[in-house]
Amino acid sequence: MTDSTAPSRRDLLTMIGKVGGAAAMYQAMTALGHAAETQFTGPPVLTGAKPGASVVILGAGLAGMAAAYELQKAGYSVKILEFQDRPGGRNYSLRGGDSFTESDGTVQKVQFAPGNYLNPGPWRIPHHHKALLHYCRQFGVALEPFIQLNHNGFIHSSEAFGGKPMRYKEVATDFKGHTSELLAKAISAKALDDKLSAEDQEKLMEALRGWGVLDKNMAYTSSLKVSAQRGYDQAPGGGRNGAPTPSQIAKLQDVLDPQVWTAMSFYFSYVMQTTMFQPVGGMDMIGKAFAKKIGKIVTYNAKAVKVAQSDKGVTVSYKDVASGQMHDVSADYCVCTIPLSIISQVDMQVSPALKAAMKAVPYGGHVKIGLEFKRRFWEEDDNIYGGHSFTDQSITQLSYPNDKMFGRGPAVLLGAFARDLAGFQLAGMTPQQRIETALAQGEVFHPQYRKEYMNGVSVPWSRVPWILGCTSAWSEDNRKAHYKNLVTLDNRVVLAGEHASYYGGWMEGSILSGIDAITQIHERTQAA
Amino acid sequence: MTDSTAPSRRDLLTMIGKVGGAAAMYQAMTALGHAAETQFTGPPVLTGAKPGASVVILGAGLAGMAAAYELQKAGYSVKILEFQDRPGGRNYSLRGGDSFTESDGTVQKVQFAPGNYLNPGPWRIPHHHKALLHYCRQFGVALEPFIQLNHNGFIHSSEAFGGKPMRYKEVATDFKGHTSELLAKAISAKALDDKLSAEDQEKLMEALRGWGVLDKNMAYTSSLKVSAQRGYDQAPGGGRNGAPTPSQIAKLQDVLDPQVWTAMSFYFSYVMQTTMFQPVGGMDMIGKAFAKKIGKIVTYNAKAVKVAQSDKGVTVSYKDVASGQMHDVSADYCVCTIPLSIISQVDMQVSPALKAAMKAVPYGGHVKIGLEFKRRFWEEDDNIYGGHSFTDQSITQLSYPNDKMFGRGPAVLLGAFARDLAGFQLAGMTPQQRIETALAQGEVFHPQYRKEYMNGVSVPWSRVPWILGCTSAWSEDNRKAHYKNLVTLDNRVVLAGEHASYYGGWMEGSILSGIDAITQIHERTQAA
Repeated sequence: MTDSTAPSRRDLLTMIGKVGGAAAMYQAMTALGHAAETQFTGPPVLTGAKPGASVVILGAGLAGMAAAYELQKAGYSVKILEFQDRPGGRNYSLRGGDSFTESDGTVQKVQFAPGNYLNPGPWRIPHHHKALLHYCRQFGVALEPFIQLNHNGFIHSSEAFGGKPMRYKEVATDFKGHTSELLAKAISAKALDDKLSAEDQEKLMEALRGWGVLDKNMAYTSSLKVSAQRGYDQAPGGGRNGAPTPSQIAKLQDVLDPQVWTAMSFYFSYVMQTTMFQPVGGMDMIGKAFAKKIGKIVTYNAKAVKVAQSDKGVTVSYKDVASGQMHDVSADYCVCTIPLSIISQVDMQVSPALKAAMKAVPYGGHVKIGLEFKRRFWEEDDNIYGGHSFTDQSITQLSYPNDKMFGRGPAVLLGAFARDLAGFQLAGMTPQQRIETALAQGEVFHPQYRKEYMNGVSVPWSRVPWILGCTSAWSEDNRKAHYKNLVTLDNRVVLAGEHASYYGGWMEGSILSGIDAITQIHERTQAA
Repeated sequence: MTDSTAPSRRDLLTMIGKVGGAAAMYQAMTALGHAAETQFTGPPVLTGAKPGASVVILGAGLAGMAAAYELQKAGYSVKILEFQDRPGGRNYSLRGGDSFTESDGTVQKVQFAPGNYLNPGPWRIPHHHKALLHYCRQFGVALEPFIQLNHNGFIHSSEAFGGKPMRYKEVATDFKGHTSELLAKAISAKALDDKLSAEDQEKLMEALRGWGVLDKNMAYTSSLKVSAQRGYDQAPGGGRNGAPTPSQIAKLQDVLDPQVWTAMSFYFSYVMQTTMFQPVGGMDMIGKAFAKKIGKIVTYNAKAVKVAQSDKGVTVSYKDVASGQMHDVSADYCVCTIPLSIISQVDMQVSPALKAAMKAVPYGGHVKIGLEFKRRFWEEDDNIYGGHSFTDQSITQLSYPNDKMFGRGPAVLLGAFARDLAGFQLAGMTPQQRIETALAQGEVFHPQYRKEYMNGVSVPWSRVPWILGCTSAWSEDNRKAHYKNLVTLDNRVVLAGEHASYYGGWMEGSILSGIDAITQIHERTQAA
């Protein structure tokens, strides 16, 4: 590798000590002892399954299919009943040619160009969701980065900056600058002498000067140095006119607007932190990969009507929604992943405690709107590649596509991701009204909207017939009263799904709950 | 698209007003008036080139090739002389089978597995470097995201946290928590009553409570809410053991360590902000694409020795480094992109002012070390996908590969990116000593280092024979005294390159300076 003469190892260690300081000698061989990233330490080990032991699973979403996959591997006989005509559940994607029918019969036909899609349900995968990532890797689901924090995305508040959208970099730099100046002033005024030693005050002042980009008077003022974070009026260039000019900082009053710190906080959230991923080609690549792996054990168009159990086993009665005919399936155990928002439609023979838990959890009513535009003007005109823009309007946010960046031709932007009141307002509109609202509100960011718009589709989860809600929304009190009952094997029936986890709304929660459900079943069979 | 009855447009606007509040009515059709992102508004328009007008360009880096490409398009006759046997200059990549020879003759043979590479020079492209992105798009250079901010990367300081590396999310959350608590205390103590109105104080307290994740006493304490940003001791899961447990916050004294706020500030830097990109397959894809576009106008292995000019034209004398023979090339004008660190080796017939400018600018001595490991343990064991870890040791940082994430097999990690003193220390070692230093210091983050290490290569730019430095390092005083002289057409010779820009060390600066250089030549020909 080299034709130089190597020094002895002892020489090297001495030199490394000199070059790297004490830290270089730090012995890192012991466990670093950081916070655990996940509860997933590998697929469950279910050894010793009894020959012929059987499990019927209700729902071919990720919880059900992960449970089926691992049960099959362990030697169990598994069947899945699925209400829809496809696997994946909320893990799905809408593409051109697809239809979406709401609970009142309203039909939308998706008109996206080939290759474009909307992920109405889950759409991003945190780097620490190791169970999900494990199966993606194992099943060969190709992943690509999902750009989360984009410093060049917009923040819009109707109450600040004169209603003008600002770039994230502008408001985030100004927020830290102004607050750093205020804290520095308080220290100078000796207001924190009883809280901070002289040495800590000195270190903190130095930190505030650097972090806040304060000037020599410890004030946050417009300058080229500040512009090197928040952006310039004229950016640096080459040749004769290369010199940059500074931009003007925003006023403290504006950056105190809640939109600023809530947007900044969003990116700090554990489940929203970088690096994130999405499957190449649409989220349903994951559901399809699971379905392929588990094989032909799924009966589609099967609406579970009754779950009866005894000491001997479980019998599920279901209706074939095409023919209307009733059928029964019997097994030793049942994993039920039917969302709690519609489980009341099933006659479940379970304990009163589990019944109470099943009724206790409300569901969110998120709305997503996908808008297809003729070109990627957010990239070409506005230098925004992936990430989000936030607003206090009901559309709540825009999210820019993370695939095929720099591409030419039509692209789909997420034109709304509304929750709570805003979600119910949008859900109450016709599809056309929702699109019109998304266009009218989104124009605040992108005046190109009307000119470039082609078509769109909206998915109000409260009106999706097979779930009538988006994801479980546990309160702290509900957790205390009902969570344990909800997730514990009830004689021969156990629930699974994102609602049976502390990761509500995340695919990781579904999979981890599915694994725990079958672990309980397996433990019971081993104990019996 | 829908079978619902559409409301009138006026109804819609009324409804949108109600749903979105005043902001929905905000008229965004006027220019939003944000800070300009770039000086590049499209390729130069050089109409009316005189038939037969000729330009000789010294150097087939990005500045020279961008100049050549646009000159050719405009009708000029162009030749390039390049010292090396390849195009691209600092835009290059090292792969298995390549050799790298230092100025003292030390040779390293790169042993990376097929498909792996190190970008010794430029390695990332900001979203606002529109000139570079324009050519990448036009020439079909495929780009992929370069993960910059990774909340799960490490921060290591020998002076804090007992020398233990911390995750970015841990220290960044703790820094904002502790400083928010301090500022809240100062406000409560009425220390800022003369600076802030009562209303602003109220808004700020609310912001600090949310942004700092303070408890009901406005204190920053360990809790599940705080763990939902900095990470948990036990992460949330599914089923029976799904409940998370909180992690312990770090002490104020530790998070005041300069490593914390300098790392946080790094990610705020305008040129470091997300979204960033890299070419798929190595940075040299860009240089190769330019070379392909400009065609066979480059004479390689041509060492410029003298640049003579008169009122009639320019004559460049160069030596064919293979044969040793001297040749002359004459043209109407000359664009010289030879780095200032080696331009003294050329007898340049230019004005004293330009000569002084050429001598005025020092160059950095960055060192990069690429380490190939048997597997991606940073992904598999440590949940780090792309991004950086920072340390106060001389390796300065690790950077994790952004390509082929989740891949199996060997991968190359950037094991050092050292500047200034640390750069010169590493440059002074043998290649083997550099690797040993990188392994010993990098072990602080990754105890897997020794077990997984395969091979490595180091590039100390101060010892790269064709440049003897990394990038120009203008001081403010030098800029005032010399920049204008350096970039202005000197009779028939004009300089270009990153050193002739306000984007020192960035490919964008090279290209923009090349464009300005030929714009000056074109203007002169039009005036003549």
